[in-house]
Amino acid sequence: MNKRTDHITREACIALDQHDPLGAIRDAFVLPASTIYLDGNSLGALPKATAAAVAKVVTQEWGQDLIQSWNTAGWFMSPQHQGNRLASIVGAGPGELVITDTTSVNLYKVLCAAAELARKQHPSKRVLLSETSNFPTDLYMAQSVCKHYDLRLELTDAKGLASALNGDVAVLMLTHVNYRTGAMYDMAGVTQAAHGVGALTVWDLAHSAGAVPVDLNSANADYAVGCGYKYLNGGPGAPAFVWANSRVVSATKQPLSGWWGHASPFAFDANYVPQVGIDQYLCGTQSMLAMAAMACGLDVFEQANAVGGMTAIRAKSLALTDVFMDLCAARCTEFGLVNVTPTAHQTRGSHVSLAAPNGGYAMMQALIARGVVGDFRGGGATGEADLLRFGLTPLYTRFVDVWDAVEHMVRMLQANEWQRSEFNRTQAVT
Amino acid sequence: MNKRTDHITREACIALDQHDPLGAIRDAFVLPASTIYLDGNSLGALPKATAAAVAKVVTQEWGQDLIQSWNTAGWFMSPQHQGNRLASIVGAGPGELVITDTTSVNLYKVLCAAAELARKQHPSKRVLLSETSNFPTDLYMAQSVCKHYDLRLELTDAKGLASALNGDVAVLMLTHVNYRTGAMYDMAGVTQAAHGVGALTVWDLAHSAGAVPVDLNSANADYAVGCGYKYLNGGPGAPAFVWANSRVVSATKQPLSGWWGHASPFAFDANYVPQVGIDQYLCGTQSMLAMAAMACGLDVFEQANAVGGMTAIRAKSLALTDVFMDLCAARCTEFGLVNVTPTAHQTRGSHVSLAAPNGGYAMMQALIARGVVGDFRGGGATGEADLLRFGLTPLYTRFVDVWDAVEHMVRMLQANEWQRSEFNRTQAVT
Repeated sequence: MNKRTDHITREACIALDQHDPLGAIRDAFVLPASTIYLDGNSLGALPKATAAAVAKVVTQEWGQDLIQSWNTAGWFMSPQHQGNRLASIVGAGPGELVITDTTSVNLYKVLCAAAELARKQHPSKRVLLSETSNFPTDLYMAQSVCKHYDLRLELTDAKGLASALNGDVAVLMLTHVNYRTGAMYDMAGVTQAAHGVGALTVWDLAHSAGAVPVDLNSANADYAVGCGYKYLNGGPGAPAFVWANSRVVSATKQPLSGWWGHASPFAFDANYVPQVGIDQYLCGTQSMLAMAAMACGLDVFEQANAVGGMTAIRAKSLALTDVFMDLCAARCTEFGLVNVTPTAHQTRGSHVSLAAPNGGYAMMQALIARGVVGDFRGGGATGEADLLRFGLTPLYTRFVDVWDAVEHMVRMLQANEWQRSEFNRTQAVT
Repeated sequence: MNKRTDHITREACIALDQHDPLGAIRDAFVLPASTIYLDGNSLGALPKATAAAVAKVVTQEWGQDLIQSWNTAGWFMSPQHQGNRLASIVGAGPGELVITDTTSVNLYKVLCAAAELARKQHPSKRVLLSETSNFPTDLYMAQSVCKHYDLRLELTDAKGLASALNGDVAVLMLTHVNYRTGAMYDMAGVTQAAHGVGALTVWDLAHSAGAVPVDLNSANADYAVGCGYKYLNGGPGAPAFVWANSRVVSATKQPLSGWWGHASPFAFDANYVPQVGIDQYLCGTQSMLAMAAMACGLDVFEQANAVGGMTAIRAKSLALTDVFMDLCAARCTEFGLVNVTPTAHQTRGSHVSLAAPNGGYAMMQALIARGVVGDFRGGGATGEADLLRFGLTPLYTRFVDVWDAVEHMVRMLQANEWQRSEFNRTQAVT
């Protein structure tokens, strides 16, 4: 073990857990025995309260009260009601954010709205700028929007952003925390630079919401979307969210003009009249089973508010990722694994990725067989590195979990377990 | 009582129930005691198996197996897998239909795809034709699509359809069964007429799927969407579905080009390449809680297949609506209630609406207070009649329920219960 990490022992990690202000929050989650779950950045763990809450929606609200639950159980306003609860986690105001649809669909809405607004304000601007290693669905949606709005999609790497952000840029679309490397943008600084050249900003908070402090209003961002099933623990395929700055929210219409975004949805008016504010970003009817699970994810954040909230979450996230990076640097480098996540606190999210030049997929499979669940993100199509990705969710990950995970990884690598044939099957879908 | 309905007694209705081939299927549903639920056309009742199926997804698949359930529990292919099961209910082939997103969002996809195809095939056609009394969200989405594709939305009433369907029509968008009147179009005939003038057809099956026989391929329809939470009993806000004829499905790209519609979603390719076939109509990640409930709704249709399937469902639907219409004509006409649902079998869906010139909203509230749950659809904004709407879902509605519902209605009307102040509050949202 490298000298630098001599002080990081299993006992020291246990001591950190004992003094962790968020330590008790772990008890709000179901976590399977004999698993160290480091994939909460892909699918967050199950809050203990969720099963009963969903069962209540199914058996009582749907089963017994049926259609009347749209009023009596608060179904109708739940996208707004739960949205207001989530708003405080990402620095949005009440009435500014709704929980609805998927991240991809919401991205389409805000990209179209931004493109429309840019066309009004600066008709000569022709570029939608994004990052080469942005999450693919963001780029796919952007390709479609560019076609409809006669824009040109330009991609840059993060280093080239400042020079790519020129006067041609109508809309800048970025994911705040990179899904591969965990690198985090300075939202306020980048937004200011974008506004400096007259560009609107669209932020994808998929790997940020609930993981790192986000302050959309302070950053003066224009539009944002994000995901409910990662750090917000809303369940597989949980509804996503969408926010727009009050400066711009009603300046244009988003194109998915369904009845839920109408000013009077139950007037059954023949003409679409968008609701004022973020409600126009609603479209169709949302799953109330999914919404109930989402609400339970948000409940845990309210519990966390009593012990420091996002400030405590951020502090623990940095401490967890520090320990993980230090241990990996000391113990895994000899096996060819190289950290690609920024070491500087201000540019790091809550997951850490290790580049694996050889056998990365099999290594992750071998690790999962040991009960340590991260995930693999291949670099194939983009020519980037194959990554072992580890999400360190502050709400339920312990320091001792981090220590044990690295210990498992070292033993797996020392024994070359990943070279066993069973771990080299065709890559699974997730 | 009118002579015409002398033979329809409560005892006769009980006898009809005793000989109903679908009678046993009712037992597959939770139905609250002391309620006659006639609103399954708005929110279908809860199948008994749903609570356990959803609980399994929550506690085992999410809670214990976590991210691995995308592969091990079949989450990843569930939009296609459940779609294939639903396909057989609407006359679609395997691999032609997926369950995803909302009806409104799916409508946007197919309207854009159809507009794009029409532009290729017949660039001079400039009209998207629909019906004045189509469900508002359909018209709202059409308004948005028309703006993007430089089309003109023209509306006609059903009677004027034949003459409005002229050579300018690029796309004809209709709801198969009208949400207000229950009037049903001849899908094959209308599609043929549309094709005769070179127009593409988009059918909304919200009030059809699971209620009336639909044969999309025999009708040679072009595109269809529909709803999971009405007659399919998929739960509040259940995922919707989308179908495209294999002739046209890959002829154009739909604009919501998210990663789930990509040919290789987990290759994380930088460029969007649509999957061949209906899979390109997938966009983002769906709620697996909602999908599990949807699957249970479809399970009941498989049970029904053993006792006649959609043929038996249609026969019972017509018999139920006949009884209801006859009883209402005989017993409710004197109170000013007038049936607006077609009496001819071939042009009727599975709900019946009574125009209420005065006090319709209060009448429905008074009826609900008696345990008979239908709904009210005001005609205010469109200048149409206020309607009392009753969905007669063949899977769980008994003939005796119909008799009892009318009996309650007559007593409510005789006693002028609807004039009590408690039933005249501001209209609720659904």
